[in-house]
Amino acid sequence: MRASEIRALFAVASRPEVVSLAGGMPYLDGLPLDVIGEMAQHVIATRGTTALQYGSGQGDETLREQILEVMRLEGIEAHPDDVVVTTGSQQALDLVTRLFINPGDVVVAEAPSYVGALGVFRAYQADVVHVPLDQDGLVPEALEQTLTALSREGRRAKLLYTVPNFHNPAGVSLSAARRPQILDIARRHGLLVLEDNPYGLLGFEGDPVPALRSLDEDGVIYLGSFSKTFAPGYRVGWAVAPHAIREKLVLASESAILCPSNASQLAISAYLATCDWRGQIKAFRELYRERRDAMVGALAEHLPRATWTVPDGGFYTWVRLPEGLDAKAMLPRAVTARVAYVPGTAFYADGQGADHMRLSFCFPTPERIREGVRRLAGVISSESELVDLFGVVPGDGGTTIESPSPDLA
Amino acid sequence: MRASEIRALFAVASRPEVVSLAGGMPYLDGLPLDVIGEMAQHVIATRGTTALQYGSGQGDETLREQILEVMRLEGIEAHPDDVVVTTGSQQALDLVTRLFINPGDVVVAEAPSYVGALGVFRAYQADVVHVPLDQDGLVPEALEQTLTALSREGRRAKLLYTVPNFHNPAGVSLSAARRPQILDIARRHGLLVLEDNPYGLLGFEGDPVPALRSLDEDGVIYLGSFSKTFAPGYRVGWAVAPHAIREKLVLASESAILCPSNASQLAISAYLATCDWRGQIKAFRELYRERRDAMVGALAEHLPRATWTVPDGGFYTWVRLPEGLDAKAMLPRAVTARVAYVPGTAFYADGQGADHMRLSFCFPTPERIREGVRRLAGVISSESELVDLFGVVPGDGGTTIESPSPDLA
Repeated sequence: MRASEIRALFAVASRPEVVSLAGGMPYLDGLPLDVIGEMAQHVIATRGTTALQYGSGQGDETLREQILEVMRLEGIEAHPDDVVVTTGSQQALDLVTRLFINPGDVVVAEAPSYVGALGVFRAYQADVVHVPLDQDGLVPEALEQTLTALSREGRRAKLLYTVPNFHNPAGVSLSAARRPQILDIARRHGLLVLEDNPYGLLGFEGDPVPALRSLDEDGVIYLGSFSKTFAPGYRVGWAVAPHAIREKLVLASESAILCPSNASQLAISAYLATCDWRGQIKAFRELYRERRDAMVGALAEHLPRATWTVPDGGFYTWVRLPEGLDAKAMLPRAVTARVAYVPGTAFYADGQGADHMRLSFCFPTPERIREGVRRLAGVISSESELVDLFGVVPGDGGTTIESPSPDLA
Repeated sequence: MRASEIRALFAVASRPEVVSLAGGMPYLDGLPLDVIGEMAQHVIATRGTTALQYGSGQGDETLREQILEVMRLEGIEAHPDDVVVTTGSQQALDLVTRLFINPGDVVVAEAPSYVGALGVFRAYQADVVHVPLDQDGLVPEALEQTLTALSREGRRAKLLYTVPNFHNPAGVSLSAARRPQILDIARRHGLLVLEDNPYGLLGFEGDPVPALRSLDEDGVIYLGSFSKTFAPGYRVGWAVAPHAIREKLVLASESAILCPSNASQLAISAYLATCDWRGQIKAFRELYRERRDAMVGALAEHLPRATWTVPDGGFYTWVRLPEGLDAKAMLPRAVTARVAYVPGTAFYADGQGADHMRLSFCFPTPERIREGVRRLAGVISSESELVDLFGVVPGDGGTTIESPSPDLA
């Protein structure tokens, strides 16, 4: 199945009769749209010649100060000058990769990793080397081994890309105990850590774990986003980087887009200044926890032969299929049965992952989630019968999705 | 003077007591901000879950249809599928360059050229070869000669970058007669034309000249923008490209930003659907014509020893200084005298241009323009006296501005 075929399948999967457990779209119906609309009106009526004009390449200064408040919830202390506002954190990913990666350079990333980051690394012809994660996130020993092996081969990794909280797609988090260990290993091997953290505030229990950036100012580039905690439609994310890197990021961003949208930035700034954004995040957390419960409940009921992660936050669970099934080969049949997911191969640079699928519980209602898992169970059951009768049907392996369609965000 | 020093100077130049003839910011006070604010409110209140959500990587389909209407004013016939919406046309410039240019590849560009395009070409390590323009725009014979010479050296140019209408910074337009000639030369030399057209609808007299894209569907990538005809703060521009290129642009844009802002796109779409955008463009044309008149009137009165272009549209005039003066060396003294401009060197990849400056008449009022030129005349007069006394003071040549600060858009 080619990348374009996968895209065609997702086009079908967006039809209303299909339960999509594929997308990473946040659920926005809970937002106070009337209030947000009035705020937008007020921003333009009172500050229109700023909101509609070119702005600073680095981003609006007031917004950068407010971003510090948001990050303080995860223990990050920074200065507004350290922040670069970008067109979603995807643009920050692109700019960092552009600055650091030449063709053939090594990027170390979790196995599995966010499809959109892999797309960027591929675009800059990086060589992605995966390191396993487990229930507590990236495994320090495995990271150490991989870096040592690379250095023995005379190859030096430049970046460690990690999603430490409520991992996309794996649903796990890097434990507090492992955080200093990972940073220490990275430091010793001269590796810059790229901490991508869109979901950190969406934990279902307890307080946020301190960000890697809060433990190491010089070795970490931190990426944040309003896409999951507020709304992706403004396309506002940010990077926090050590001084010399941050200056280069601003120049690279000016070359790429001149400046981020003032209209978007001022709208978000007004939202943060006048709305109860902490309360909104709390409401999102409860909403997504209920959906997580629906998802893992339905999986336990309908997929006894599969295993899955039980995430403490975020949007995704990572399901291992019964022996012999291929998530990519099965996808067309699933879509025919009116349920969609993302096959695990999308989250590896090297064709692994056919035995996994990512299921997201962010967008559909609990009832739809249960219905989707029921449908999926029917598909898996038919596939399993075929496998039992005819043995393992080998998948075609290596095709990866060439671009992170927004459906997969 | 280093690039960072130039940036520092422009920071000073943004103070209110300085008349800035440097920036390319459109004048937005004439926009109906109340109406635009209410439209923004209405879009979010009625279509908020779309406006605030991820959207298509290629851009909103309704907006792409409306963009066709805009382009029809310059004779372009296209299909919505041909259009890719980007974060300002700067992002389209970046994506096209990313797709086509490997380090060392040749880009042919007018002498002078838009500073933001040169920044992108430099970022991708293109080798920019300048071709002269005159009152009728890019000179076909010079283009032919340059391409022939390049091919004799075994170097093939990949892209011809051109701003055919109301050129930034030169203020001239490519005549209708030359358009097919340029396209014919490009075709014969296997050169893709990158037509950057932010100002085409801002002509001061007569109808728009047909776009290059209207004469050649297969050999031209067209870039358009709402930044000058409506408002840059939404960061919405677009590219129109032949089918195979357009598909690659969408994938590259998804990798860079996932998708353009739905909030911005829906706001512009509502503006185009419900406001008299043609009337607004007409009002802008009249406003800018009045300022052009103030500019050239003041130049004639105060700068008898300089020469300049008299633009029929757009934002800029290109001034040649009296013999022996260096616009870059003079800039700090001009800023001290409370007037700013962009030295000509910013618009060349090779350090030429110290004898020129770009003056923009888009943002300051006619009165401020006259005051700015008066101040400039004082600075030039003092400089000229020094030159007359001590002879030509050689400039330092080659430093170019490394990034297109939004001040220079």
